[in-house]
This record gives sequence, C-alpha cells and structure tokens, in this order.
Amino acid sequence: LLSNGLVHVKNPHLDSMDEDVLYHLNLGTKTHNLPVMFGDVKFVCVGGSPNRMKTFAQLMHKELGLEGDGKDLKDICAGTDRYSMYKAGPVLSISHGMGIPSISIMLHELIKLLHHAKCRDVTIIRIGTSGGLGIDPGTVVITDIAVDSFFKARFEQVILDNIVVRSTELDKDLVEELLNCSKEIHDFPALIGHTMCTYDFYEGQGRLDGALCSFSNEKKLEYLKRAYDAGVRNIEMESTVFAAICGLCGLKAAVVCVALLNRLEGDQIKAPHEVLVEYQRRPQHLISLFIKKRLGLYNQMELLDNAFFLNN
Amino acid sequence: LLSNGLVHVKNPHLDSMDEDVLYHLNLGTKTHNLPVMFGDVKFVCVGGSPNRMKTFAQLMHKELGLEGDGKDLKDICAGTDRYSMYKAGPVLSISHGMGIPSISIMLHELIKLLHHAKCRDVTIIRIGTSGGLGIDPGTVVITDIAVDSFFKARFEQVILDNIVVRSTELDKDLVEELLNCSKEIHDFPALIGHTMCTYDFYEGQGRLDGALCSFSNEKKLEYLKRAYDAGVRNIEMESTVFAAICGLCGLKAAVVCVALLNRLEGDQIKAPHEVLVEYQRRPQHLISLFIKKRLGLYNQMELLDNAFFLNN
Repeated sequence: LLSNGLVHVKNPHLDSMDEDVLYHLNLGTKTHNLPVMFGDVKFVCVGGSPNRMKTFAQLMHKELGLEGDGKDLKDICAGTDRYSMYKAGPVLSISHGMGIPSISIMLHELIKLLHHAKCRDVTIIRIGTSGGLGIDPGTVVITDIAVDSFFKARFEQVILDNIVVRSTELDKDLVEELLNCSKEIHDFPALIGHTMCTYDFYEGQGRLDGALCSFSNEKKLEYLKRAYDAGVRNIEMESTVFAAICGLCGLKAAVVCVALLNRLEGDQIKAPHEVLVEYQRRPQHLISLFIKKRLGLYNQMELLDNAFFLNN
Repeated sequence: LLSNGLVHVKNPHLDSMDEDVLYHLNLGTKTHNLPVMFGDVKFVCVGGSPNRMKTFAQLMHKELGLEGDGKDLKDICAGTDRYSMYKAGPVLSISHGMGIPSISIMLHELIKLLHHAKCRDVTIIRIGTSGGLGIDPGTVVITDIAVDSFFKARFEQVILDNIVVRSTELDKDLVEELLNCSKEIHDFPALIGHTMCTYDFYEGQGRLDGALCSFSNEKKLEYLKRAYDAGVRNIEMESTVFAAICGLCGLKAAVVCVALLNRLEGDQIKAPHEVLVEYQRRPQHLISLFIKKRLGLYNQMELLDNAFFLNN
C-alpha cells in the first residue's frame, strides 16, 4: 500500500475539486505552486507555539549548513495568524496551537498540502511540552502509545453524528530510532512511555488550580497514580488525534515532548523562564540529531554539533 | 448569589495558594498588580485570531474616544505567544485560538485574573467567525443556545476520568439587547439562532474537502438539514465550553459570530480576502455599538459613529 511512499488522502471527493483552498494555512492549489514550494519535504515537525517552531526552523537551517541567514526565514503562512510555517531545506516546521481541534485542522490541511505537492517518504514529528508523571522536570518522553483520559489507546472522532473509534498507534521503529539518538546526547534524560492526551488543561488533567475544581488533592493523586500505573509518563493535549490522523494517512509519526514539571509534585509551572526555555530546546536537539543522521550528515558535522550543545 | 457582581471562581483550593501563575497568559499574582492593571474591566471580548482581537481593541480605543494613539496598544501577554491581550479603557480584548481546549485554557486563566483583580459586573462576548446554515454569507448570528454535534444544549467535561454534563445556556436578556442593537445597524443582516459547536472543522462539520472523508454529499446534506431543522443557524468550535464555563462562574456571556459561507452551498471558504475582512468587522461593529450604549456614550457619538461606518 505504501510502496510508492506518497501521502494518502482518504477522500474520494478531492479528485473532483477544481481548486483546493487550504484556508487556515493561507495556501491553495491555484494560488501557489505547491510541488515547487514543498516537493522536497521529507521531515515535518509540528509544535504548539509559533515562536518555538520558528526557533526550530532556524536551528535546522544552521545545523544542515544551508546557505543564507536562518534569521531571515519567512513565515510561509504570513497571510494568516492561525498557524505559522517555516521551511529549512527538507524540513518543514509548523505551529499547531493548543488542543485536539486546533492540531486537527492543521493536519487536514498539511496532509492535503503534502498530497498536492507529491511529497514522498515523509516522517512527521510533534515536538512539544507536557506535564510529566513521576519523572524529573526536563525529561524528554518519546511516546510509544497515545492514550485518552481513560488510559485507552483510542481516539473518538465524531463524523456527522456518529462516533468512530480510531487507533492511536505510533511507528515502533521510529520510537526505537529516536531512543537510540537520545543515547548519544548526554545533556538530558530521555525515555519511552505512554502519553495521555486530554481535552482540557485544568479539570481534565486533575489540576487543583483552575477557575473550577470540584475534587480533592487525594482524588487527584489517586487518578494520576492510576495513570502512572497504566504506563503514562506525560500528559499533553494533541497526541491522540495526531497519531490517529497520521496513521490513517500513511505518515510515519512520532511524539517527543519535554516534561515541564512533575505533576505528582504540583500543578503550577513555576520554573524560571530560562530553565523552561532550555527544557523546550531538548526535543529540538534530539530531532535535529535524528534528522542529520537520517540525511547522513551526522559524522561530518559531529564537531560542529557538539559545539552547538556546549554553546547554547 | 451574584448580588456583589464579583466573578465566581468555584475552586476551594485557590485561597490557600501563596501565588497564582497564569502560565499561558504570562501573568501572575506576585509578578503583576492585577487589581491596578485590570480592576476597571467591564467588558471582555474574545475571538480566535490575535490580529482580529488587536483590531477590535484599536476600534474600541477610537470609538470610546480614549487618549493617545490606538495603534500603539501593547500586547499585555507579549511574553508568550499562546494568546494575545489588549486593553482599551474598560474593554479587554483577548485571542483564544481555535477549538474547545484552546479557549478553555484561556477562560480558566482569564476568570482567575478577573477574580484576583476584583472586577465587578463583567460582561463577556465571543466575537467570532463561523459557517452559516441556510443563511446568507455575512449574516451575523447572535447565539441563543449553544449545542453539540448531536444538537443537544450540553457540554461534556471530563473531570479526572468522569464525564460531567454542563449546561450551555446563555444570558437571554443579553441576546435581546444585542438583537436590538443590531436593528440600529442597517449595513448587514443579524438574527438569533442556535450555534452548533464541534471538535473538528472537517469530518465533524460534514465537510467533503478534508484529508479524510468517508461520507457522501447526500449524507452530509441530510445531517446539515437535520441541524437546520433543530434550529442551528451556524457552526463553530468554541461556544459550548464558553457558555458552560462562563455560566458556572457567573459571567453574563454572549456569542456573536459572522457566517463566512452557507454550508448548504459548499465547504470551502473562497470569498475574496477583502470580503472576508469586511464580514469579520461586522460582529465588532455590533459589539462596539452595544458597549457604547451600555456606557451611555452612544448619543453623543452618533455622528462620529456613522462616519466610522461610512469610511471603513
């Protein structure tokens, strides 16, 4: 099925459309030459924050030794403020906002973009932030399975008024490859674990510090410990739908998130700004190494790379 | 219960917290003097797009005759790119991104902000965009009831691993007041209707143009017509949780969205940029008039106001 390496759209109606406007990306098949703009893309990296995804594109520009000043990278979606998109050689870096609906809109339009551009053999990675569960702040979690609030590996999609259950499995080989990459970086801990994806940051993640809270600290801890016992090591808000949509469309997908805090020890994100900034660079460094190894650029650039980690 | 006009937080744990970091707004009780910064706020307007909410704050700055150049308004949340926030006198204008989870995070932190700032008698209005159902593009819909994908006036909130059903009723008097305001503006049609709120823009709203689509045009139209028959006049992605959270916290809330297209006639948003920009100004003009009337500024400024509509 995947032998040609093309992205699958699973929509028989698309072929009969004269034009496809990717509204939230401010791109379209009649207004843009998508194969020329995006045909060479091999890696798509996505994350919540526009600034973080710009920083990542600049990092990749530098690490891949591309010509010109990475600081000049233009937002390809500049005509809209819904999402931001940057390109550094074969790497596309896109923001997706917060939560399942926001990333879902972006993924539909991104996958149609990759289809229209005839991209082949694309790997997609979410590099994000999360709350950790029983792990040290700053730990990078490589997700093996994305689970919902009930610790089930499923995503419930409402289609018209039917509920369809979709698998949230991720690519096992990619998980191992990423773990192996992480072993070459000694600056921070990384591990494989389940990632829980919720629809809400406060009540849905058992936080005691929202505008609304109807449960006790004991009930909160009992829930989070059950999650830990089910294999959950971090909690975020996009992984289930990301795994479900990418899986259906034949994209090899991974989720790599840093934990900003240990939820068994608190709810508020209080670490100093510089510490949080450094934590957020960790998944970026891991994915940068992964991409360079895939492109056969690692050995040549090893010295440069180590210099980067020491200086940043 | 509401006689003092204060915002309700319904969380017994908040009182015992030494500090409250409103992480996604980049504000906090120890780092900012919230009563001084926000104590005079009477109207909070929220919408998906940061640029649109900046434009609205600039409009209010001008319409309220405030001193200084409205073009200089600073993003109060400049330290983060999750949300943007602008203040024009008693009007706070905040972006919430797309979808239920994204607006939900913002509302929890906004409501705590209003609580810490001891604001009184606050009215909150979502001014957004939507897909219309059996109405002309450009029509402004004032929501009487927010319903889910099954046309029910409810919001299902996962708390730990329990599902709690919340009411999505909005303030009836506010709906009438807004409809009366709309009658004084002759530039565009406005009506009262139910608003359907979905978790997804493509499959969940019956679109035939996503990366995934498993249903026919006939099934799509059958669903949308059932929605119309149930009273739904537009579809968006935030209204149920907005109504539910604001209702629980004692905030008088309204939802006013313009329809960018008629979903019975298509899925793609293809109107020219200038037309879409003008459509998006319509809810802003309605709410500007509403706020000026509430503040007793309308009669004095009527001439200026009409000049604004003619020139913009």
